Amino acid sequence: MPTRTPRSDTRQTILERAMDLASVEGLEGLSIGRLASALGMSKSGVIGHFASKQDLQLSTVESARERFEAEVMAGVEAEPGLARLEALVESWIAHVEGEAFAGGCFFWAASAEFDGRPGAVRDRIAELTRSWLDQISAEARLAQRLGELRPDEDPAQVAFELHAFVQEANWANQLLEAPDAFARARAAVAGRLARAARLAPIGLAP
Amino acid sequence: MPTRTPRSDTRQTILERAMDLASVEGLEGLSIGRLASALGMSKSGVIGHFASKQDLQLSTVESARERFEAEVMAGVEAEPGLARLEALVESWIAHVEGEAFAGGCFFWAASAEFDGRPGAVRDRIAELTRSWLDQISAEARLAQRLGELRPDEDPAQVAFELHAFVQEANWANQLLEAPDAFARARAAVAGRLARAARLAPIGLAP
Repeated sequence: MPTRTPRSDTRQTILERAMDLASVEGLEGLSIGRLASALGMSKSGVIGHFASKQDLQLSTVESARERFEAEVMAGVEAEPGLARLEALVESWIAHVEGEAFAGGCFFWAASAEFDGRPGAVRDRIAELTRSWLDQISAEARLAQRLGELRPDEDPAQVAFELHAFVQEANWANQLLEAPDAFARARAAVAGRLARAARLAPIGLAP
Repeated sequence: MPTRTPRSDTRQTILERAMDLASVEGLEGLSIGRLASALGMSKSGVIGHFASKQDLQLSTVESARERFEAEVMAGVEAEPGLARLEALVESWIAHVEGEAFAGGCFFWAASAEFDGRPGAVRDRIAELTRSWLDQISAEARLAQRLGELRPDEDPAQVAFELHAFVQEANWANQLLEAPDAFARARAAVAGRLARAARLAPIGLAP
């Protein structure tokens, strides 16, 4: 990680609020005026911390990345392989279920908002979400090399499916307010990993 | 279905453009001025067709529902049960893959945009997406009653997972521009249905 200059508390306070606002109303809805009003600050108290609206958006994305790394990735201490794959996905589910952000998963909301808006913000969101998907995939591949997943499974396919279940739970929780969303995601993950981990049955259809 | 008054061609033209714009930039980004400019029309030529911005948003959602019903649901002629379940999901994948809307799945984008914005638009998006999820679930339940899915499967759980795969493919295609997104969704659906359809193996872990 590159060395960072220490951040002012005010900047951090602004970014905390910006993450919550963006998770509900979108990164495009972020404005200096909106933030100043939400924080009870003057516009000039907010404006000095960011060079532009895009700088504010990118800084908000980086703050969300830091929180994701601290809450989802840092606490996972399971053994590399299947145990860590399960622990990483469970940690992510708990993070989304705990509504780390007011509007649910920050990156899911940002994905939908920016997928059709070319530029630096979209590129960074794509880079970070792809990196997380790749990390799940790499852990599945390691589990396979350790003999914990069937050799005929494609680790990237397993990662696609596990990732889908957590994003679906966030969608169902946020939009449908489905009380069973996270239980369904956990059942889906457990079922998929059981299938991937099972010894190949002989004489049965695949 | 309630009887509808015939629509003017102009109104339909406006709504076609509104669906594409909304799928890329969001329903909140829709404005009379934006639509007039996109269509090369005068603002007054657009404004008379809608009572308010919310009316424009709700009308756009209804147009997207009509297109979804026509493109995804109407053409499915498979036998009720497992065959129709597979055909419905494949028809949905083909619809999303064909980028029926400029920004990908209209309802996925609208879900993320409106899940945190209480009101009539959010309610309608939730109602329509829940109804589609319920339809997948009902078809899985019928397949189970017909003996085509294992009795120990929960049809709503199967529906959650199949629905997740298609939404994930839309996400991966739109944001990551992943060339294999739809192939992965199809493989995931096939694998999940094979597992749900298989006779319970005796003496093997579940």
